[in-house]
Amino acid sequence: MNQFRRNPVTGQWSIILEEYDIKELIATKHVRKRIGEKKGAGKCNFCSGSEADTPPEIFSIRHNDSQKNQAGWSVRVIPNRQPVLQIFGDLNNRGVGIYDVLDGIGAHELVIEAPDHNLQFPNMELSQIQDVLAAYRERILDLKRDQRFRYVVLHKNYGEGQVEVVNHSHSHIIATPITPTRVKYELMSAMEYYRYKERCLFCDILYQELSDDERVVAANDKFVAVSPFASRSPFEVWLLPKLHETFFEFNNDHPALAAILKDILQRINTTLNNPNYVMVLHSGPNVATGKLRGYWRTLERDYHWHIEITPRFRGFASFDVGSGFPINAISPEHATKILKEEKII
Amino acid sequence: MNQFRRNPVTGQWSIILEEYDIKELIATKHVRKRIGEKKGAGKCNFCSGSEADTPPEIFSIRHNDSQKNQAGWSVRVIPNRQPVLQIFGDLNNRGVGIYDVLDGIGAHELVIEAPDHNLQFPNMELSQIQDVLAAYRERILDLKRDQRFRYVVLHKNYGEGQVEVVNHSHSHIIATPITPTRVKYELMSAMEYYRYKERCLFCDILYQELSDDERVVAANDKFVAVSPFASRSPFEVWLLPKLHETFFEFNNDHPALAAILKDILQRINTTLNNPNYVMVLHSGPNVATGKLRGYWRTLERDYHWHIEITPRFRGFASFDVGSGFPINAISPEHATKILKEEKII
Repeated sequence: MNQFRRNPVTGQWSIILEEYDIKELIATKHVRKRIGEKKGAGKCNFCSGSEADTPPEIFSIRHNDSQKNQAGWSVRVIPNRQPVLQIFGDLNNRGVGIYDVLDGIGAHELVIEAPDHNLQFPNMELSQIQDVLAAYRERILDLKRDQRFRYVVLHKNYGEGQVEVVNHSHSHIIATPITPTRVKYELMSAMEYYRYKERCLFCDILYQELSDDERVVAANDKFVAVSPFASRSPFEVWLLPKLHETFFEFNNDHPALAAILKDILQRINTTLNNPNYVMVLHSGPNVATGKLRGYWRTLERDYHWHIEITPRFRGFASFDVGSGFPINAISPEHATKILKEEKII
Repeated sequence: MNQFRRNPVTGQWSIILEEYDIKELIATKHVRKRIGEKKGAGKCNFCSGSEADTPPEIFSIRHNDSQKNQAGWSVRVIPNRQPVLQIFGDLNNRGVGIYDVLDGIGAHELVIEAPDHNLQFPNMELSQIQDVLAAYRERILDLKRDQRFRYVVLHKNYGEGQVEVVNHSHSHIIATPITPTRVKYELMSAMEYYRYKERCLFCDILYQELSDDERVVAANDKFVAVSPFASRSPFEVWLLPKLHETFFEFNNDHPALAAILKDILQRINTTLNNPNYVMVLHSGPNVATGKLRGYWRTLERDYHWHIEITPRFRGFASFDVGSGFPINAISPEHATKILKEEKII
């Protein structure tokens, strides 16, 4: 079975796979896993009409009388056929000498975001994006009922990823028994800030950004999109609800969120020549698990959910593996100006 | 001027460049910076005999009567012609509302590791590698005399990097006014472990690894090379001195270190078909800076310098940007077996 293992030096948990084809790994021309790809002129597995080619659906949104696992859906959620984490079993949380290990238990689902192969967020109807957001919410709420899972990660790799070739619009939902290191540091920063200031760190960031108005890319009555002050890579954008809210899954402003999400992805697509990007939802951890209840006492006051969108450019990537510092070639103020004015470069 | 900026949410510092060619950044076919590359059949800038084509040297090792900036050197250190950090100026450590900013002050040097264009660590003489280690030591000691610098990062990107095409063997030395986030977390883990156990975390890891003998790739009387228990990527290897030592730059076992370094890089080269890799030295921070003296009271007892080597394979890279967990396809035990037996895949 795959394992979660914690590095005691860095505090970071890795998922160690039990079996993998080494030849495939080190081959110069690596054959990427192709997901949601059309075969010739036909349909891909994710297309409406190919429901029988995927595992049975976990959830779908249908605005008509269509049946489960049949055409007629607007958004469809299926289990990943090759999950890195398996859903059945106990965590077997244990020590191996000084090390910490858990069995690779979790859920790995795919959200197919439109029935049409060629539809991406920038050209979707707002109602379609709202259906996607509703599917995200439903799956997160459901997965958080499982007390084994401390966190639910939702992320999207748009464009040609490093591991898979992606065509048909989809996102990954991964429920894990551990909070990812990055999220944990965020939660801790927010907690420390709250203890010191008795205010939410993100609310303070929003206040400053709206006053400065140098890094606000877009805003509507419910949401703000900003270039983070210390952005790690060019054109990174964060979307935050204006009013303090800890969990994405309790948010009800889907029309406003769909609108700003579409707007931002359209701006990125237009001004930057349709780059690849990673989109990650940062919502609060699962408070249903006993351990969280005690630790994150101020969680609902100090943490503020948001979405991080990071375009990925070929050729210029992080120097940070070596130096330890992300080097961002475009200042967030400059990036904001370009995205705001939709200046074609 | 370039700036260090801290993200208050993640705690991470980025270096934000003042000016960069956006067109170059988003071009589909990005032209990489080519460093140390031969022009046709001629010599590259880094080759012996091309000394006039580089900025004047900061340091060199010469076993003959040759003059500075002339041929005859064994290892040569020069300033980076396009440094991301500049050496002159004050840090101007300041707040901008809730954010933290420092001017982009630092040093960025290149260590040219051999006069011959085609020589890489696996085929260097041990005496040549010892010269390289001596150059690393001298530069780190010298840079740490500057009280503005809290940390000196030494790293090497072998093979085709994402930002530059590298041919002639070289490493980067970057002195920074901030400890990189990754190193800081390491220092904090080590400190916490020491407070709890009154033993060095790394010494305990070494003890367990040598007893288990499942992840020890190689060892000599002074050094051990292990696959970390929770390695982040396939065939990651850490080199540690057997006896507790905080600072690389005070180590005198260069013959043994050169031998194990050459051995490991040779194994990686042979068994994995000459992959790209990143090598980073993790030594203690600069204790000459006033602030460190107080904070890291137990530093010399709890921190243990080491070298991290991470091969980078095309096609299979970190899923971690999205999921928050590095997924490692080859278990460290399996990787150890392959490297130990030098099994050609």
